[in-house]
Amino acid sequence: MAAVCTELHPPREFSLIARHFRPLAGPAGLDLLDDAALLAPPSGREMVIAADAMVAGVHCLADDPPGLIARKLLRVNLSDLAAMGAIPLGYLLTLAAPRETPDAWFAAFAAGLAADQAEFGLALLGGDTTATPGPLCLSLTILGHVAPGRALRRAGARAGDGVWVSGSIGDAALGLAVLTGRLHGAADGPLAARYHLPQPRLALGQALAGIATACLDVSDGLVQDLGHLCRAAGVTAEIAAEAVPRSPAALAAGASWLETCLTGGDDYELLFAVPATQEAALQDAAARAGVAVSRIGAFRAGPSEVILRDGAGAVMRLARGGWSHF
Amino acid sequence: MAAVCTELHPPREFSLIARHFRPLAGPAGLDLLDDAALLAPPSGREMVIAADAMVAGVHCLADDPPGLIARKLLRVNLSDLAAMGAIPLGYLLTLAAPRETPDAWFAAFAAGLAADQAEFGLALLGGDTTATPGPLCLSLTILGHVAPGRALRRAGARAGDGVWVSGSIGDAALGLAVLTGRLHGAADGPLAARYHLPQPRLALGQALAGIATACLDVSDGLVQDLGHLCRAAGVTAEIAAEAVPRSPAALAAGASWLETCLTGGDDYELLFAVPATQEAALQDAAARAGVAVSRIGAFRAGPSEVILRDGAGAVMRLARGGWSHF
Repeated sequence: MAAVCTELHPPREFSLIARHFRPLAGPAGLDLLDDAALLAPPSGREMVIAADAMVAGVHCLADDPPGLIARKLLRVNLSDLAAMGAIPLGYLLTLAAPRETPDAWFAAFAAGLAADQAEFGLALLGGDTTATPGPLCLSLTILGHVAPGRALRRAGARAGDGVWVSGSIGDAALGLAVLTGRLHGAADGPLAARYHLPQPRLALGQALAGIATACLDVSDGLVQDLGHLCRAAGVTAEIAAEAVPRSPAALAAGASWLETCLTGGDDYELLFAVPATQEAALQDAAARAGVAVSRIGAFRAGPSEVILRDGAGAVMRLARGGWSHF
Repeated sequence: MAAVCTELHPPREFSLIARHFRPLAGPAGLDLLDDAALLAPPSGREMVIAADAMVAGVHCLADDPPGLIARKLLRVNLSDLAAMGAIPLGYLLTLAAPRETPDAWFAAFAAGLAADQAEFGLALLGGDTTATPGPLCLSLTILGHVAPGRALRRAGARAGDGVWVSGSIGDAALGLAVLTGRLHGAADGPLAARYHLPQPRLALGQALAGIATACLDVSDGLVQDLGHLCRAAGVTAEIAAEAVPRSPAALAAGASWLETCLTGGDDYELLFAVPATQEAALQDAAARAGVAVSRIGAFRAGPSEVILRDGAGAVMRLARGGWSHF
C-alpha cells in the first residue's frame, strides 16, 4: 500500500481532477463530483461500448507528447466505434501515472483530450486518477450509439464479397520505425504523425450500414485482423499485396518495408467486406465521408485463412502474422 | 514498443481472452469477438456508469490471491453503483499484466469474476488484455441503471439531517494493517477478509431513494468522504467518534487504532444524510436490505467541514484526513 497520508484538503488527486479533468466533463459527468455518471441513453438506440488500454513502453513511447498520448488513446477507442458504425457519446478514463508526473504533463494531456472532444463531439463521463510505481497505464471506455440491429459486425463476410480497406496501410508502423530510429530518410513527419494520431473513420463506418457485410478496424496488422474476419465467417480471404493502399511516404520507404506495412498494426483503418452489388453504394458513401477506399482482394469458400499474393501471383510467406502484446 | 512479434495463431492475447474471459461474457458482450459490445438499455431507465482503477502495490498487494483481486475490483465498482442506488447491468475490464504472469493466475482471476458475476447479477461486456513492464494495472468500468431522477447524489444534505453510515467502519484498514504485519493479535481473519472482499451495499442503496438526501460510498476514509458531502451541500457535519460503528474485531484492536478506522479507507460502506422524518422509513429499508445502519452525527449550518468529537465532547484533531493516491 503505497498510498500517501495527507492532511491536504483537497489532496493532490482531487486537485488534479478539479483542475484538469472537470472542465472536460459533459452534463452526464455531473462535474465528476458524484460516484458515477448519469446518462439518459438516446431514445430507441442501441448502446455501443468498448474499452482499450494503453501502457507506456508498449502502446506508446514514454516520452511521447502527453497531448498526443491522450488523443491517440481516445482515437483508438473512437476507431472501435467507427468499426461498429456508431456515433460517439462519451467516455470514461482511468489514469495511473508515476507519482512524480508534473502538473504540466496533466495539463497537456487534458488539452489533447479537449481538442479531440471538440473534434469528435463527445465528453468525459467519469473515471479515476491514481499513482503507480510502474509506467503510465491508461484505460479508456467509450460509449456510442447505433440504430438497433444496424451495427457493423465482424461476422458476415460471404464468398464473393470484396475485401476493402479505407485510407492507407502501414504508415503508423513505419512511423514507429522512424521514431525508434530504425527507418531513416523517409518522409518522417507524415509517418510519425500517423503513428501518433490515428484518424478514426467514423463517417465511413456510419455510412457502411447496409453496404458492408462485415467490418473491423485494423489495429494489430492488416493480415492478422483480416484473419479475424475469415474466422468469424468461415471463409478464405485472398488479397494482392500490391493492391494494399500505401501512402507516398510509405512507398518511398522501399520494398523492404512492405511486410512491416502489412503486419505492423496501429493503422486504425476500416477493413470490410462488400458484395459486388453494393460497390457503387460504397463509392458514394466513401466520397461523402471523404475517405478513399480500396479493393484489395476477395473472400472465397475455403478454410479460415488469409492468402497473400505478390505481383507475380505467388503466395507470399510472412515472417510474422501481427502484433501480440504478450 | 515492447510488443512481441509472433507467428502463433491465435497469439497468447487472443488465447487468454478465449479461455478465461469469453466464458464471462453476456449476450451484450458478443462473445468478445467484435470491436465493441452492443447493449440495449433497459427501457425508460437512466444509465449509471463509473470506472475505477486498481494497481498492485497501491490498491492491492501484488501477492493477493488473484480471485480476491478480481472480486475486489468488481466490488469497488459495484459500491459506486450502490452509492447511486443503481442496479448492476454489466462491466468492461482492461487488464495490463506482467508478461510472465502464468495462465493459472488468469484462471483464478477469471474464477473470481465468475463467482461475483453470479452473486451480483451482471456480465462482462468487453475490454482489453495487454502486457505491461510494470505492476498489474486493472481498470473496470461498470454500468447500471436507475429510475430517471431517482439516483442518489452527493449533494443534498441539509442542516438537521442525520449523518448515517451502513455496516461497520475501519475493518478494512485494520485488515491491511494485519496483512502488512503492523497489527498483531487482533481477530485477523475477519479484518483481512474485509480488506480483500468489500460488501457493496446494493440493496440498501436501491432502497434509499426518497429517504436519503445525499449519499456516497466510503472509499478514502470516513472523515475525508464525509467532507465531500459537506462541500457538495455547503454544510458542516458534526459526528461523535464513539457513535461510529466498529466491529467486535475492530474494537478488540484497541483505542490506539480508532483514528485508523476513521480515516483508513476501503470500507465501501454507504455514508448518507437522512432527515428525521425519514428515520422510520430508513430503519424499514435497512431491515429489508439486511444491513445495520447507524446515526453518527448530524449536519448543521456552517462552513463545509467535518467536526469530530470524542466521548467527552472535545474536538478531536486527526493526524491525517484520509488517503490520496498521489
